[in-house]
Amino acid sequence: MHLLIINGPNLNLLGKREPEVYGTETFEDFLEKLRADFPDTEISYYQSNIEGEIITKIQEAGFALDGIVLNAGAYTHTSVGIADAVKAVNAPVIEVHISNTYSRETFRHQSYLSPVCAGVIVGFGLKGYKLAIQSFL
Amino acid sequence: MHLLIINGPNLNLLGKREPEVYGTETFEDFLEKLRADFPDTEISYYQSNIEGEIITKIQEAGFALDGIVLNAGAYTHTSVGIADAVKAVNAPVIEVHISNTYSRETFRHQSYLSPVCAGVIVGFGLKGYKLAIQSFL
Amino acid sequence: MHLLIINGPNLNLLGKREPEVYGTETFEDFLEKLRADFPDTEISYYQSNIEGEIITKIQEAGFALDGIVLNAGAYTHTSVGIADAVKAVNAPVIEVHISNTYSRETFRHQSYLSPVCAGVIVGFGLKGYKLAIQSFL
Amino acid sequence: MHLLIINGPNLNLLGKREPEVYGTETFEDFLEKLRADFPDTEISYYQSNIEGEIITKIQEAGFALDGIVLNAGAYTHTSVGIADAVKAVNAPVIEVHISNTYSRETFRHQSYLSPVCAGVIVGFGLKGYKLAIQSFL
Amino acid sequence: MHLLIINGPNLNLLGKREPEVYGTETFEDFLEKLRADFPDTEISYYQSNIEGEIITKIQEAGFALDGIVLNAGAYTHTSVGIADAVKAVNAPVIEVHISNTYSRETFRHQSYLSPVCAGVIVGFGLKGYKLAIQSFL
Amino acid sequence: MHLLIINGPNLNLLGKREPEVYGTETFEDFLEKLRADFPDTEISYYQSNIEGEIITKIQEAGFALDGIVLNAGAYTHTSVGIADAVKAVNAPVIEVHISNTYSRETFRHQSYLSPVCAGVIVGFGLKGYKLAIQSFL
Amino acid sequence: MHLLIINGPNLNLLGKREPEVYGTETFEDFLEKLRADFPDTEISYYQSNIEGEIITKIQEAGFALDGIVLNAGAYTHTSVGIADAVKAVNAPVIEVHISNTYSRETFRHQSYLSPVCAGVIVGFGLKGYKLAIQSFL
Amino acid sequence: MHLLIINGPNLNLLGKREPEVYGTETFEDFLEKLRADFPDTEISYYQSNIEGEIITKIQEAGFALDGIVLNAGAYTHTSVGIADAVKAVNAPVIEVHISNTYSRETFRHQSYLSPVCAGVIVGFGLKGYKLAIQSFL
Amino acid sequence: MHLLIINGPNLNLLGKREPEVYGTETFEDFLEKLRADFPDTEISYYQSNIEGEIITKIQEAGFALDGIVLNAGAYTHTSVGIADAVKAVNAPVIEVHISNTYSRETFRHQSYLSPVCAGVIVGFGLKGYKLAIQSFL
Amino acid sequence: MHLLIINGPNLNLLGKREPEVYGTETFEDFLEKLRADFPDTEISYYQSNIEGEIITKIQEAGFALDGIVLNAGAYTHTSVGIADAVKAVNAPVIEVHISNTYSRETFRHQSYLSPVCAGVIVGFGLKGYKLAIQSFL
Amino acid sequence: MHLLIINGPNLNLLGKREPEVYGTETFEDFLEKLRADFPDTEISYYQSNIEGEIITKIQEAGFALDGIVLNAGAYTHTSVGIADAVKAVNAPVIEVHISNTYSRETFRHQSYLSPVCAGVIVGFGLKGYKLAIQSFL
Amino acid sequence: MHLLIINGPNLNLLGKREPEVYGTETFEDFLEKLRADFPDTEISYYQSNIEGEIITKIQEAGFALDGIVLNAGAYTHTSVGIADAVKAVNAPVIEVHISNTYSRETFRHQSYLSPVCAGVIVGFGLKGYKLAIQSFL
Repeated sequence: MHLLIINGPNLNLLGKREPEVYGTETFEDFLEKLRADFPDTEISYYQSNIEGEIITKIQEAGFALDGIVLNAGAYTHTSVGIADAVKAVNAPVIEVHISNTYSRETFRHQSYLSPVCAGVIVGFGLKGYKLAIQSFL
Repeated sequence: MHLLIINGPNLNLLGKREPEVYGTETFEDFLEKLRADFPDTEISYYQSNIEGEIITKIQEAGFALDGIVLNAGAYTHTSVGIADAVKAVNAPVIEVHISNTYSRETFRHQSYLSPVCAGVIVGFGLKGYKLAIQSFL
Repeated sequence: MHLLIINGPNLNLLGKREPEVYGTETFEDFLEKLRADFPDTEISYYQSNIEGEIITKIQEAGFALDGIVLNAGAYTHTSVGIADAVKAVNAPVIEVHISNTYSRETFRHQSYLSPVCAGVIVGFGLKGYKLAIQSFL
Repeated sequence: MHLLIINGPNLNLLGKREPEVYGTETFEDFLEKLRADFPDTEISYYQSNIEGEIITKIQEAGFALDGIVLNAGAYTHTSVGIADAVKAVNAPVIEVHISNTYSRETFRHQSYLSPVCAGVIVGFGLKGYKLAIQSFL
Repeated sequence: MHLLIINGPNLNLLGKREPEVYGTETFEDFLEKLRADFPDTEISYYQSNIEGEIITKIQEAGFALDGIVLNAGAYTHTSVGIADAVKAVNAPVIEVHISNTYSRETFRHQSYLSPVCAGVIVGFGLKGYKLAIQSFL
Repeated sequence: MHLLIINGPNLNLLGKREPEVYGTETFEDFLEKLRADFPDTEISYYQSNIEGEIITKIQEAGFALDGIVLNAGAYTHTSVGIADAVKAVNAPVIEVHISNTYSRETFRHQSYLSPVCAGVIVGFGLKGYKLAIQSFL
Repeated sequence: MHLLIINGPNLNLLGKREPEVYGTETFEDFLEKLRADFPDTEISYYQSNIEGEIITKIQEAGFALDGIVLNAGAYTHTSVGIADAVKAVNAPVIEVHISNTYSRETFRHQSYLSPVCAGVIVGFGLKGYKLAIQSFL
Repeated sequence: MHLLIINGPNLNLLGKREPEVYGTETFEDFLEKLRADFPDTEISYYQSNIEGEIITKIQEAGFALDGIVLNAGAYTHTSVGIADAVKAVNAPVIEVHISNTYSRETFRHQSYLSPVCAGVIVGFGLKGYKLAIQSFL
Repeated sequence: MHLLIINGPNLNLLGKREPEVYGTETFEDFLEKLRADFPDTEISYYQSNIEGEIITKIQEAGFALDGIVLNAGAYTHTSVGIADAVKAVNAPVIEVHISNTYSRETFRHQSYLSPVCAGVIVGFGLKGYKLAIQSFL
Repeated sequence: MHLLIINGPNLNLLGKREPEVYGTETFEDFLEKLRADFPDTEISYYQSNIEGEIITKIQEAGFALDGIVLNAGAYTHTSVGIADAVKAVNAPVIEVHISNTYSRETFRHQSYLSPVCAGVIVGFGLKGYKLAIQSFL
Repeated sequence: MHLLIINGPNLNLLGKREPEVYGTETFEDFLEKLRADFPDTEISYYQSNIEGEIITKIQEAGFALDGIVLNAGAYTHTSVGIADAVKAVNAPVIEVHISNTYSRETFRHQSYLSPVCAGVIVGFGLKGYKLAIQSFL
Repeated sequence: MHLLIINGPNLNLLGKREPEVYGTETFEDFLEKLRADFPDTEISYYQSNIEGEIITKIQEAGFALDGIVLNAGAYTHTSVGIADAVKAVNAPVIEVHISNTYSRETFRHQSYLSPVCAGVIVGFGLKGYKLAIQSFL
């Protein structure tokens, strides 16, 4: 099984940005452990701050791989374009958020992605990515 | 580890009600398999159609057990009282929904519980309960 | 034909509460006359102030009887759970309100039940129950 | 007893328009049966696509006849003028809708007429007219 | 000077409809007195329950006469078409309401006509028409 | 007959402020002409920029004089206190606005005063004060 | 191919009303040129200021002709009844607006017709009718 | 004088739940002191987490006792049914909240009960119950 | 203990204004009795119709006295400035309203003051001031 | 005449994505035919998933070419930046949508682009591009 | 150059009120330093808690001085009257806020003044006044 | 001190786009003068039409330089991602707008950036950038 994790804007700052919200571990460190946890699964990774590049990546992987784990960060709340891409592709997409977006600002309570994703996992910290991978198995 | 699964109103009809949304398996059948999947975890189960009884059960379990997996069904969208109970207790509570509530009627998009739960898992069918249990391990 | 009339919260006060809105006849008196009007129809009756008990009763009757006449009172405007029960069962459910809810407070204009009921009868006083029974014949 | 049924815009297409919503029977066919069901009641009938003509007809009948059964169709949701006429006349007016307007588009959930009508009957198909007539007896 | 008074839907019932709101005098009686008060002004009168006929009348008079006094009744709150006609013609149009529409139902607080009329007179009873005529002198 | 005209904030700038909206005549010049037009009526005048002083003046005049003509300017849209004073006193109060407030910014479309005034006159320029005086005669 | 152009309220004033928005050409002049441009197409024309007459015309033409080009003018924004007629008939209906309604008042941004029309053409001046005809070929 | 104090959902946790908001004293301890403060008043006490049981208790006490002190907790913000019961009974009902609900989440700012209660006391901690009792003397 | 009662706009009319809402007793009469009820407490009194004077008085008393009882009248619903003053001073401020503001016009349901006051007492008539004084003891 | 067609996000999937909404033809195939239909017009083509690249392209072409046909896809509903670019350039821009966006999700009903485009064409499938080209001729 | 600084309600408490938001320096201390920084500019100062006095001061200075620096405090969010004064006068007015009003309560995000001021400076602490003065040079 | 000015979409058109709003000077010309005004400050400059590139630039500069002056143009009103970047970095960010965004379209009144910026400067034309630089000194 081949999965792709896509991280959206500012998630490249993980471990650096607002550690009280997002923790101090970098995503690269975490990714290494995650791959160790799932030795039979190929886990690719992509990060971009650009909405359109995330759309393009979903289009590519969504017709080629078995599933996508998507943390679109801030674009979750503003991007109809990413939602359209999710809806357009064959591979199921799981929406993940590290923090509990529902206990933060009101504009983070609404997600354009949730209605078109195969599942939504919110608030578990980085463990949320692991749960998302498990959901594919 | 001792966990409690609480199911809210109409979830006793699982397997019988709107099978195209909720599937045809009864929760009892599913529970048996779930317990087999986690032999080292004690998994209690409670179902009620009455909001106040769910509050009472969260109060009891929330100071005694290690965690609660809560699918409050329709009360998710209308009950401040259950949210207050979740916030009041010590045990972490994971919110689970079988269907993707975000792709259904607008009034199902809002949850009083999400802001006070330790994590939210939506749209994975019955597998969502399994992911919730895994999140505690 | 076997029908069930379910009355929700505060309707046990009928004849006592706000007579200028609901009239002075008790429901028990009315029920007697109603049964006399439909000698070939078995008309059961249930009243509860508890939302979850109404849900349970709809679940029971909704798979066993030929139809339900439901005046959910105040829960009409706040209960997603009763609406879910109505939608889940096989028997058609007719929504009845004694007073004209549309000419009262704004929050009484919205009904979670109307979209899932087989029919809605509003504002005819106690005669509304009779019209509901007639609709099944 | 002399009653008038008033049908609003597009109801002249009954049997022809969206039969999955409104059925295939024409109103004229139905009317014949209805009159047969109530041999002691004179049932007049009026249909117009023009809001102002419906207002005029309500004004005329509302001071001369014993009651009006009004399905104002689309004007239900937009006409303050028809509501004013209903409120102005002596005869009680019963609002009827063939389909369940509450389970259709949001703009059909609001009725200017309901607050001023003596009763509201929604979702029973053509049988709704019959129930309305019965409510006068 | 030649002016036209246009009255909209249900104003033909004046003296008959809700006398506690609109008084008991018919408009014809009032009109006679009004003409007596302004012997040097020709005062024409038109009433219709039909929105489109009011539009047509405004179009005709609005390029021929010196001014229009318009009480569009219920159409005040719903008719973009009458407002467009008012805006299209050369003659100034004065909006009049007999009752104080701002102290009645919320939907009567909004007027499509007010922004395009030359002046607005509300709440003076029939005297409002007289003030409107005076405003032209 | 003794009437009082009350002008609210910034109306002391009349003739100076935004002449394209309010004209170039000062209110004092206009007042002189107005008094000449109504030789049998005593017309007092008061202007203040302070909300509470306007309230106090309405309280004083409202139990002593025959009527008040009130242009509360900006306070029209924000002052519950002036509306309460209008409602509290015996003398009828006529609301006047020089410009057509309904064709300006949205926040000028709402008036706390209109529902409690005996009449509303909007958009006639300074002539509106004259019409208000005439309405008392 | 036989098409019908329907123009709604105030469009009979074309060339006369607000020329800076709608131009100075009358629709009759334009229609002559339009027919010349499409010699193989029969182009009928209908104009009414009355909502209900437009409904009736759509009902007639919508089961007899090949298509309708509809500029409902002000009724676009307020008429559920015309939308219902469009939805009821067999012939495809193309919605046309001369001016760019989206750059005008907010209430002109919403159209009851757009969701049920086969296509929408806005802002091209009278050329919009020509594009609509071309869309049928 | 015989009064009843009714506490709603989660108030049984008083002294245990969010002590920074609600304090550390249990209600039973407080009640003892309260009864000592009012030796001439009989003070009954009832607590339930179930909305319908609170309705039933209000119905019973509301026709038998001299007054009710009601802290409906979370149901304050969601229960039309409790408000209907308050309105239906003879005894005056005083609404009490321990914390300042107006300085907490937005959904706690609205109370279905306040409009139908004889008085409202908010934000005084447990002392609020004492003030409520005093209001009856 | 030295307390200050501040009354806002139109409360100087007490006993005169809308007696069916506010009663017929003047505040001065009431104050005399109030002082007699609390012989050990110094009770100062201030009334103003001017928002800014109330702000100034709160600033003065709020750093000098032991507490303030504030009935800001109409400014309750519109004054951010008074709320800021309440928040700025050391003395606790108790908000009082004579009538039940929650059962009156919608704009009276919102209070800028409630979130920053130490307590809120609504609907007890003049007795509310007494309860407020008691809350300080 | 030299025109540019700009397609926004996910339109590169045309023929592949949701064919029941967008059809099965790829845009490249369609473009070939379109160019054949307009042999005298140079038709350039640009597609990007990146909002900022579309802005840049509009800036370039908008000062160099004769017109732009813009289907901004999902950015239609969220991009103020593209609207600003359209408004900034000299060339007229025609907005095109393949599907009827007004009959889809609510968030697709609003377009930031419509108010600043020279014309809007919606719901004609790929033929909409052809009509847009024709509008330039 | 002669400028006037106007401070609104509660800003006289600067250094005393909520120091964590507004700092501990009094405005008088700050003003001394500010005047030293701009030896060639005459800087007058005015503070009032009364909305109407601020209006009057703007009217006076706005036709006599070269510019106004206005921190209207709480009136920023509620005063149409001050905004009208700003718009009426000749001198440019710069709006200043010490704290970042956009990161505080929602009702502080809206300013009636911003649309009519020549510039807006928010969140720089007392330095904002200095930047405002610099903007005039 | 090393500062970075970031300009967002369409600001590369400065001097070319809507000169009546933004003036006729290009930003490059202005930048030269700005650098001359602050000889001791290093002022870098970056412009992009791509949201994600602006995010990346803020991430880079925000941990390396002393401050950022950010005019995000249209993204101000739609970009949660840029706001997240501003919040994530160490360097203070000053928000600048050339025109008075509060006096333009409603959607330009809301800024995702303002709540997380260290200061906001609006409406001073290009001088706003100079004030922003001064705020850092």
